[in-house]
Amino acid sequence: MKNPMKARVYVSLKPTVLDPQGQTIRGALAGLGHTSISSVRQGKYFEISLAPGTDQATAAAEIEQIAKDVLANPVIEDYQVEFFD
Amino acid sequence: MKNPMKARVYVSLKPTVLDPQGQTIRGALAGLGHTSISSVRQGKYFEISLAPGTDQATAAAEIEQIAKDVLANPVIEDYQVEFFD
Repeated sequence: MKNPMKARVYVSLKPTVLDPQGQTIRGALAGLGHTSISSVRQGKYFEISLAPGTDQATAAAEIEQIAKDVLANPVIEDYQVEFFD
Repeated sequence: MKNPMKARVYVSLKPTVLDPQGQTIRGALAGLGHTSISSVRQGKYFEISLAPGTDQATAAAEIEQIAKDVLANPVIEDYQVEFFD
């Protein structure tokens, strides 16, 4: 049987948007002695499995729509979709 | 001048660990009509910039240590490190 198709969606803040969470992590890392780190930005990551038998084109359109409408806020966030098996 | 080296660290729950947040997203997507989604797992994603001039080997060791000790909980989470320019 064919394995279910899987997609990864990465959501990160746009480069122009401040990321206080990332700055806090950077500060904590500096406090722990990791001084070569100049910046940290945090994002979200989703691993989505599709029902077996979904064709590639339908899946791509659906995942794209989900990423745009549900997982990311396109006003302040960028997203990236990647398929793998 | 050389651009700063960058790394991405992906942290996700181990496959054997329940992910209630992912299940909630899956339920919400089903409610929105995205019924071909069979599962969703959520993880975290960090984009780390290193100070210019850090050499590749030092950077790799440092990021690996940060991922293991700070960003991920190795008891329940897996992590993956990736360098890019």
